[in-house]
Amino acid sequence: MNHILSASQFNKGLIYKILLSAKKMETALNKGRVTKKLHDKIVACLFFEPSTRTRLSFETAVLRLGGQVIGMENGSVSSSAFKGESIPDTIKIVHGFADLIVMRHPQNGSAEVAAKTSKVPIINAGDGGNEHPTQSLLDLYTIKQETGRLENLTFTMVGDLLYGRTIHSTLTMLSLYPKNKFIFVAPKQLKLPEKYKAMLKNRKVSFKETENLAEGLKFADVIYMTRVQKERFSSKAEYEKLKLAYVFDAESLKQIKKSAVILHALPRVGEIAEVVDKDPRAAYFRQAQNGLYVRMALLQYALGLM
Amino acid sequence: MNHILSASQFNKGLIYKILLSAKKMETALNKGRVTKKLHDKIVACLFFEPSTRTRLSFETAVLRLGGQVIGMENGSVSSSAFKGESIPDTIKIVHGFADLIVMRHPQNGSAEVAAKTSKVPIINAGDGGNEHPTQSLLDLYTIKQETGRLENLTFTMVGDLLYGRTIHSTLTMLSLYPKNKFIFVAPKQLKLPEKYKAMLKNRKVSFKETENLAEGLKFADVIYMTRVQKERFSSKAEYEKLKLAYVFDAESLKQIKKSAVILHALPRVGEIAEVVDKDPRAAYFRQAQNGLYVRMALLQYALGLM
Amino acid sequence: MNHILSASQFNKGLIYKILLSAKKMETALNKGRVTKKLHDKIVACLFFEPSTRTRLSFETAVLRLGGQVIGMENGSVSSSAFKGESIPDTIKIVHGFADLIVMRHPQNGSAEVAAKTSKVPIINAGDGGNEHPTQSLLDLYTIKQETGRLENLTFTMVGDLLYGRTIHSTLTMLSLYPKNKFIFVAPKQLKLPEKYKAMLKNRKVSFKETENLAEGLKFADVIYMTRVQKERFSSKAEYEKLKLAYVFDAESLKQIKKSAVILHALPRVGEIAEVVDKDPRAAYFRQAQNGLYVRMALLQYALGLM
Repeated sequence: MNHILSASQFNKGLIYKILLSAKKMETALNKGRVTKKLHDKIVACLFFEPSTRTRLSFETAVLRLGGQVIGMENGSVSSSAFKGESIPDTIKIVHGFADLIVMRHPQNGSAEVAAKTSKVPIINAGDGGNEHPTQSLLDLYTIKQETGRLENLTFTMVGDLLYGRTIHSTLTMLSLYPKNKFIFVAPKQLKLPEKYKAMLKNRKVSFKETENLAEGLKFADVIYMTRVQKERFSSKAEYEKLKLAYVFDAESLKQIKKSAVILHALPRVGEIAEVVDKDPRAAYFRQAQNGLYVRMALLQYALGLM
Repeated sequence: MNHILSASQFNKGLIYKILLSAKKMETALNKGRVTKKLHDKIVACLFFEPSTRTRLSFETAVLRLGGQVIGMENGSVSSSAFKGESIPDTIKIVHGFADLIVMRHPQNGSAEVAAKTSKVPIINAGDGGNEHPTQSLLDLYTIKQETGRLENLTFTMVGDLLYGRTIHSTLTMLSLYPKNKFIFVAPKQLKLPEKYKAMLKNRKVSFKETENLAEGLKFADVIYMTRVQKERFSSKAEYEKLKLAYVFDAESLKQIKKSAVILHALPRVGEIAEVVDKDPRAAYFRQAQNGLYVRMALLQYALGLM
Repeated sequence: MNHILSASQFNKGLIYKILLSAKKMETALNKGRVTKKLHDKIVACLFFEPSTRTRLSFETAVLRLGGQVIGMENGSVSSSAFKGESIPDTIKIVHGFADLIVMRHPQNGSAEVAAKTSKVPIINAGDGGNEHPTQSLLDLYTIKQETGRLENLTFTMVGDLLYGRTIHSTLTMLSLYPKNKFIFVAPKQLKLPEKYKAMLKNRKVSFKETENLAEGLKFADVIYMTRVQKERFSSKAEYEKLKLAYVFDAESLKQIKKSAVILHALPRVGEIAEVVDKDPRAAYFRQAQNGLYVRMALLQYALGLM
């Protein structure tokens, strides 16, 4: 049994195994020959925050592997959380019903709290502004597919680097690989937290911060755009001021390398213009699709079946 | 692969095939011998507006045919639509997970928009005040069952003919059949849109408009009552004034033909008195039940399995 | 076909059979050898109030028995109830799709109303402040497991005895057994309704009312703590005043018998301190787990398969 809580629990060897397993899942799905490894298993998908990609890809992954799903799409309203139940109390119930728990929760660190209590594996599907490790593994899968490698790449990460949990998790994994460089493009109010910069320094990884998008785009092998998340702001005015701080549009396409890859965890709300979608370098919808393969692999890893 | 978006895509030949297939489904269900034609298929049911009948009948249809369901019952709150994601962006994700997408959305034309993007079939389960084609097919199934025919009938349609998407779709199909006549009973503010009257004129179908319910009931072979939909009004006062403009009650039962059939897409909120339910001419609960058979047929048609 | 609506429909013989069947379910689950008695059955879980334990345990029970689930986790918003549909109208639809209906609804007596209309079995999963009979059966299962018997026990029931539907149902069942005694500890505003006291008098069962927790704890074989339910109060101030009227904490542990058992239907919001969890007499999480076994038995009983 393996909890999946944080990007920091994955070393290169484990990432390699998971990406390899995900590739096998992709092939098996395309051939319509998936082994039903989750037969007779029940997975609880507990979502206390809105989700489309993450929840539906996990549920699809469970079903394609022959398992079954219980859960909540809107747990903050429809579950006992609404009545004030604590996370450990909820977990102590659900782990008696399900063989594995996938959880998204608005509170930073909630996945860790859940794992401390649970007798079944917990998969963190996003805990507040903290981490989103399964998204990061599908990011790496996509980068590998699109560029052929995970090292010697320049990444430009743009937008909300403060609350962007995907950025935190993906950055942590990518900084394991040699010769990767990072350019962080963010408004002052949404800069990368100090602890991640400290991690990079500690790992002797080269990085640069700027507020200038053009500067960030020029040298990037991979551009990672992010949404400024309304749900993390208490002030609407502050959100409105920042939400479209950086927009990647037709003009941006001219500024990036021919071999560049454009990623986004989605949903987007304007920070990538639709005109960009047709460009072959726009990889964000392929990225979302990869989520299915990677999550099929991760379910098996968590259950000790990989 | 066939999208199901609008009543106008169905000709008499196709309607015949679908009703025949639905009849076979009814028989198979009653004998407990349904072929699992959707084995290994996943259907996404994306509901961005409340639903009981439509969503549960689709989900039941999928399960009875051996398929599996992912989706959302309250997508406007629980999905990325809440974060501002566009319909095409949502579809570009979900079509990578599911083999077919059933969608209800408050926006007119949303099903068309979805179909333009989707690589899997889209079934329109209601798009705002526009169309609800699967409801219309079950209406026709019911009319055929109850009266023995689809032609040479007088239909009296009562209530909200402006926003009533079911009326729009059902009217479009019924006007294909010879010698059908229509009487439209609606308050001034909720009259049938011009484009549907133009369609009838174009097809040389006889119709009449009135605000007088009694006049409409007298000659009807089929009475189609509708709910005035609170969710389509911005003014509560306007809604309150109109909601019970026409009520079908014990008195109305005396005014209609012995052979008449009373339909309603349900839910009702007072426009048919409960006392009417016991009358054998009240067919609206049989009509709802027929939804299961017709949707089983439609799922197969959309997937090219019929 | 058997509706499960109220604790009062169960006599000792039937309770015995259900607890025996539940025990078999527990054993079968632990051995991974559950007979798929609900194969090809669809169960509708209609939840119009928040739930974690009850809904997820029912859904798990259905799936473990080989059945399938349709339903709603948040029906007051996501279903036609939101549009004003009545309970009988909703049931007349759903009983055409599902083989059994599990319903939670905020309205007292709603399960009875549903059963009057339904042609498939209804299981009451909580109707307002009225009853919660399946919770009571799992309470009895737990009491039997923990104390070895259902008779000759002193029960101390603490907290909201007015709206606590579980208390009402469990009390009704427990008072069937000889030599049981009850101590009711509640603030003035939340005392046990007269009709339950009348029932006890009628059955010649000894009971006592007090506002003093210590007095209630001293002689108890079973302590049943309850949550004061915010959702039953119209006045927030009133709720705030009462919510922690009685707290079971480390100090309370010293006051109870060595052989005592502490129960709670959960969720709790402070009325049992977390420090109590580690005490072997704290049985409430085992109690919740037992819900799965008992509901597996009840599904079979309702469908006439037990």
